[in-house]
Amino acid sequence: MTSSDLGRLWAVVPAGGAGTRLWPLSRARSPKFLLDLTGTGRTLIQATVDRLEPLVGDRVLVVTGSAHEQAVRRQLPPGTRVLAEPSPRDSMAAIGLAAAQLERDDPEALIGSFAADHLITDQAAFAASVREAAAVAAQGYLVTIGIDPTSPATGFGYIRASNPLPGFDTALTVAEFVEKPDDARAREYVASGEYRWNAGMFIVRASVLLDLLAEQHPDLAEGLRAIAADPSSLEAHWPGLTRIAIDHAVAEPAAAQGRVAVVPGRFDWEDVGDFASLAALTRPKEDGMRILGDESLVLTADASGLVVPAAGRTVAVVGLDDVVVVDTGDALLVTSYQKAQGVKAVVDELRRRGRTDLT
Amino acid sequence: MTSSDLGRLWAVVPAGGAGTRLWPLSRARSPKFLLDLTGTGRTLIQATVDRLEPLVGDRVLVVTGSAHEQAVRRQLPPGTRVLAEPSPRDSMAAIGLAAAQLERDDPEALIGSFAADHLITDQAAFAASVREAAAVAAQGYLVTIGIDPTSPATGFGYIRASNPLPGFDTALTVAEFVEKPDDARAREYVASGEYRWNAGMFIVRASVLLDLLAEQHPDLAEGLRAIAADPSSLEAHWPGLTRIAIDHAVAEPAAAQGRVAVVPGRFDWEDVGDFASLAALTRPKEDGMRILGDESLVLTADASGLVVPAAGRTVAVVGLDDVVVVDTGDALLVTSYQKAQGVKAVVDELRRRGRTDLT
Repeated sequence: MTSSDLGRLWAVVPAGGAGTRLWPLSRARSPKFLLDLTGTGRTLIQATVDRLEPLVGDRVLVVTGSAHEQAVRRQLPPGTRVLAEPSPRDSMAAIGLAAAQLERDDPEALIGSFAADHLITDQAAFAASVREAAAVAAQGYLVTIGIDPTSPATGFGYIRASNPLPGFDTALTVAEFVEKPDDARAREYVASGEYRWNAGMFIVRASVLLDLLAEQHPDLAEGLRAIAADPSSLEAHWPGLTRIAIDHAVAEPAAAQGRVAVVPGRFDWEDVGDFASLAALTRPKEDGMRILGDESLVLTADASGLVVPAAGRTVAVVGLDDVVVVDTGDALLVTSYQKAQGVKAVVDELRRRGRTDLT
Repeated sequence: MTSSDLGRLWAVVPAGGAGTRLWPLSRARSPKFLLDLTGTGRTLIQATVDRLEPLVGDRVLVVTGSAHEQAVRRQLPPGTRVLAEPSPRDSMAAIGLAAAQLERDDPEALIGSFAADHLITDQAAFAASVREAAAVAAQGYLVTIGIDPTSPATGFGYIRASNPLPGFDTALTVAEFVEKPDDARAREYVASGEYRWNAGMFIVRASVLLDLLAEQHPDLAEGLRAIAADPSSLEAHWPGLTRIAIDHAVAEPAAAQGRVAVVPGRFDWEDVGDFASLAALTRPKEDGMRILGDESLVLTADASGLVVPAAGRTVAVVGLDDVVVVDTGDALLVTSYQKAQGVKAVVDELRRRGRTDLT
């Protein structure tokens, strides 16, 4: 690694997704990346940019939906570059648009994509992984950071590594990306020691990413580069771009060609994907209840779980275990860790009823 | 029975008790008898008086705490007699005070005591029982209406009957009153066919009640009659009156003397003592959820129980069975039918914290 690798690295922060699984905390108009879900006083996107700043300074490019552009700008330091997508076109278009602009400005630019709504607390270990990943990316690889799994989670895709990459401390070549496994398979993956969680972090030279894309989806690569060359053509090109995730568009085909490396991520990582994951971030009180917010508002008796007293009202929970109570000004959710994924049905029903004020 | 028996009957409605077990619906300042807990548009005390009106016309005397006197007057027809107790002195003093006033005005007056917070829907069967009870009471008995049990409930006392009372359709002499049983004993009681629920309904000539009381607690009977003779002495006498329930003060001793009769109550009866009892009054939707209030506010997925959306907010319940969610403007309770009695601990804790605004 040379210091110039990191000096050329831009952090690309895709900030999308409604976070339906965290409703009613997270809404279409205030998705989870705009929320302080940890009670630290920083929203997830602010914490993401805070974490990247020691690595990239102000070389941060956020890609978000046009509906959230102003909110993102308000939360981030003045001058932060923000690209607004006219409509959702999945992660390849979002990251690719950033890559095309950065490639245009600096043909040697490296990009690292880091979702706006993930949490990492071990800054030093994160930084070490990104530094090594940038060095590997400078050699022309598409590099991902694979999180050392702490449990056989079924909510993430996995990355299977093969051989160490000569010349680097920890990097390995990637044998394959695999989809979210069932429980038995997840246990096998973790037991084998060969698999790591796919956290959606990709570090790559911008031009390499677009060239890989051009091999698989030439129209998409061409469209993105055309927009970069003439930003005024964004509205014209955007609706025609292929909707595809970056994993499918480039990472999986490139892995099959031996062109992908993984740097093990030996740090805590949370995608805050559901209430159980949110609860895990919140320290339990003596009685086992976790409270995200003003603890003085919550009274419990013979109960455990997560309470979010976001409406300022007193919340009493009696005789329920692993319960989830999310109290907001206009909507209340009561569920359990185990059944919380069912909240999507509620959000769908509210949309069906035209209650977009609540979703 | 002669028509004059009913013509001399006054309904005495003791309206007391905070209904802590229904918190946060029921509060010290708005106890359950002041609330519309059935969604019919009538509060429990209004429904009680509605039910009595065909039997006694405007001969209704409510006894309540001074804190609730104005609220009671606002809810009942103008001119309804309301006695305000300076402080709680249990049911014997409350009913005895009413009896002493009515005895003073008419030495032959009958009284029937009917709690302000019970529910009965079968008006015809209720009226038939009261008519027979009044006729038996006119013969000098202390008469109770014993509810035919529909389950081996452990939350009520029971009345054991012995022989039919000659000359009446259904009345029996009472062998004994028994305290709330444990589950096994309750099953024995119900299986025997000899036991009925004690719903606290007593029909008796006012003078008989006070004379029975004078045998057991002469000071209390004397105090109550002194207040009736000089209402301005209420404040002076009241604090010295014995605190005792009418069951212990007169019903149990009189039963031992063969002076108590029971008229079987062949009607539905609910004391709305907890959330399970409240739920039983609410018709379940197709999915098993019961909603007391605006159904359009409640969304459920794979859930059953009771939701009271009294704050006007949307309430979503996902993946929980027999859950109780009570949403009010300043306090939210989440519990289950099985554990709902634990709400008392929450109310106690709020009082300990000085949050009487919430209790």
